[in-house]
Amino acid sequence: MSDDFTQRATELVEAGRFLYQRGMVPATSGNFSAKLDDGTLAVTVSGRHKGKLAVADIMRVNDKGESLDGRRPSAETLLHVQIYSRTNARSVLHPHSVNATLLSKLTTGHLVLQDYELLKAFPGVDTHECRVTVPIFNNDQNIGRLADQVDTYMTVQPEPVFGYLINGHGFYTWGENIESALRHVEAFEFLFECEMRIRGKSK
Amino acid sequence: MSDDFTQRATELVEAGRFLYQRGMVPATSGNFSAKLDDGTLAVTVSGRHKGKLAVADIMRVNDKGESLDGRRPSAETLLHVQIYSRTNARSVLHPHSVNATLLSKLTTGHLVLQDYELLKAFPGVDTHECRVTVPIFNNDQNIGRLADQVDTYMTVQPEPVFGYLINGHGFYTWGENIESALRHVEAFEFLFECEMRIRGKSK
Amino acid sequence: MSDDFTQRATELVEAGRFLYQRGMVPATSGNFSAKLDDGTLAVTVSGRHKGKLAVADIMRVNDKGESLDGRRPSAETLLHVQIYSRTNARSVLHPHSVNATLLSKLTTGHLVLQDYELLKAFPGVDTHECRVTVPIFNNDQNIGRLADQVDTYMTVQPEPVFGYLINGHGFYTWGENIESALRHVEAFEFLFECEMRIRGKSK
Amino acid sequence: MSDDFTQRATELVEAGRFLYQRGMVPATSGNFSAKLDDGTLAVTVSGRHKGKLAVADIMRVNDKGESLDGRRPSAETLLHVQIYSRTNARSVLHPHSVNATLLSKLTTGHLVLQDYELLKAFPGVDTHECRVTVPIFNNDQNIGRLADQVDTYMTVQPEPVFGYLINGHGFYTWGENIESALRHVEAFEFLFECEMRIRGKSK
Repeated sequence: MSDDFTQRATELVEAGRFLYQRGMVPATSGNFSAKLDDGTLAVTVSGRHKGKLAVADIMRVNDKGESLDGRRPSAETLLHVQIYSRTNARSVLHPHSVNATLLSKLTTGHLVLQDYELLKAFPGVDTHECRVTVPIFNNDQNIGRLADQVDTYMTVQPEPVFGYLINGHGFYTWGENIESALRHVEAFEFLFECEMRIRGKSK
Repeated sequence: MSDDFTQRATELVEAGRFLYQRGMVPATSGNFSAKLDDGTLAVTVSGRHKGKLAVADIMRVNDKGESLDGRRPSAETLLHVQIYSRTNARSVLHPHSVNATLLSKLTTGHLVLQDYELLKAFPGVDTHECRVTVPIFNNDQNIGRLADQVDTYMTVQPEPVFGYLINGHGFYTWGENIESALRHVEAFEFLFECEMRIRGKSK
Repeated sequence: MSDDFTQRATELVEAGRFLYQRGMVPATSGNFSAKLDDGTLAVTVSGRHKGKLAVADIMRVNDKGESLDGRRPSAETLLHVQIYSRTNARSVLHPHSVNATLLSKLTTGHLVLQDYELLKAFPGVDTHECRVTVPIFNNDQNIGRLADQVDTYMTVQPEPVFGYLINGHGFYTWGENIESALRHVEAFEFLFECEMRIRGKSK
Repeated sequence: MSDDFTQRATELVEAGRFLYQRGMVPATSGNFSAKLDDGTLAVTVSGRHKGKLAVADIMRVNDKGESLDGRRPSAETLLHVQIYSRTNARSVLHPHSVNATLLSKLTTGHLVLQDYELLKAFPGVDTHECRVTVPIFNNDQNIGRLADQVDTYMTVQPEPVFGYLINGHGFYTWGENIESALRHVEAFEFLFECEMRIRGKSK
């Protein structure tokens, strides 16, 4: 294995432990990936406990998401591939939190986040006085079809996309490295918790 | 003690520590068991602190739930026995979480879980587009009578049962080994939290 | 110092660390005590960080709550003294949780807990089909006067009392040793969380 | 570096780890400072992960908030400077919790806290029967202008101020040392959680 692979895989293992301890990848849900220098991807093997990953639970796929070692990658690898194809992301994380799941079920079409200082955690955002739109896609067991929907959205949408929700199914976010992707997970989770808890409360 | 017993008992001790840290077995509540190769059961001794179990706090009962060493097993051992008699479970876990307790008090008859990706954590479920029914039984200090009610439900019910609630009294779930049973605990707890928190929130 | 004092003090230090980690004694709030074999009390010194106690932060008072070493005990020591005078308690714990604080503000007079299996955590309760009444006293900076109110209640009340709330001020519970008192803290905290979260939710 | 700087910086690093573990400084949000014996300030460098600070992530600024080592301090350093100029604080902490963020969005003008025993955590408060007013300022990316608003409030307001909220942006509090400031963070966070969770609940 290349040093590059081992380093990224080690970081994904640590990210898994962190997200599991926060309750964001229960019951083997969620999946993670990082782009390697040669353009292939390091991605979680399907079905593993995300809080107890070892480097051996990370595998390589090519830029079409096809296995390079005979093992089966996470079922949603094509969603990772789509994100790498449209952004400059070097890591994609898919946590599966209660807040994200609930918001995706309560909201139709997209979620608008505004007037939060924490929006400045996203690249290029330098004021709370902006609107960040988070699209919500219908869940689909046909991942290729779901990836096409995301791709169409990203092509049509003029503003930057920092992440998206899938109905009843958690969220996707990414960054220029694993550390940045984790920062975006933290920011979204904070904002999703705010949005969930403020619902039904009056001024 | 057989190696089989010691290994299962060690896993139950670890499961207890894990579930206690998550707040799912407070104040000595809850109980756990595993089926051994000879058909007898390893089960928690009555009244122990579930976050501080030692192997000595796990005892053996026969397939009718009768003590094999003179000590008193958890009061609800007959519920474990019933589950082993009707399913291919090798481990049964009974956590006592706030979410499960509240849902059981707010819901009459049964809970229906649907449109959650996490339903795929249960064996044989391969799409979010299914309905998982969780029956809710009335609490009863006569455990034999309660076990009979569960048994009747499982006999009559055509679809697979992955777990059940008892009113004001937590939930039961199981799996082909302790790891699988824990995965089902995580999945149910996530789904119960979703169902509790979404109540009273409007789209 | 006697062995008895050192052992009880060590247990109170550990109880403090546990309760602090659970968020139940924030900002130096709360206080703890244990009865020693000679009838004197080991009690927390006033104003200490309850998650970072050392044995040196535990002092002795006599059975009237008067300091035996010149230091100042927790301001609410007289409430501990009252409990020891009316019950067979050997330890009294006063956590200051959010759930207890909120319930005490939302409820007038007393709280009734029923139809919870976890009620069996309290001594002598062997079925969920009972009613446990938790009185709620008005907060008062005159602790002697507050202790008198509790004493009157315990004298008049025919049923066993397992704990009480003070308005805006957490709860008191006790047990035949520190381990039992902690079990009652866990049970009350679980039940208070249930009662708080079920409020406003409809069947 | 002076011993004084190293000691305060070490305490700020520890405070960061503590507040991060409690979810109060997600995604590099928040900032911390301490006043040194020579009147200069030790303050967090801009943009650092607050749960993984090292002493090298703490820098010095003068009493106007100007960098003394060429690095860029946290964007909100002028808010710290203002607090030191008007109070006897030796440490200022700015956590960014969900509870504080939500309350600031739901409340107009100021928040009144009363009938909580925990109010006694603030200096000079010796009874729950007092009113603590927490002003809420509009968020502003112009930190100098925001600091002026806070300064005007503190000049005009006759009663002691223990902390304030910024809309959608967490809270500021302070103390005569880092330990005291942390105690005030704990007290405010507890009270903010109470205020958030009691909203919409009826007696």
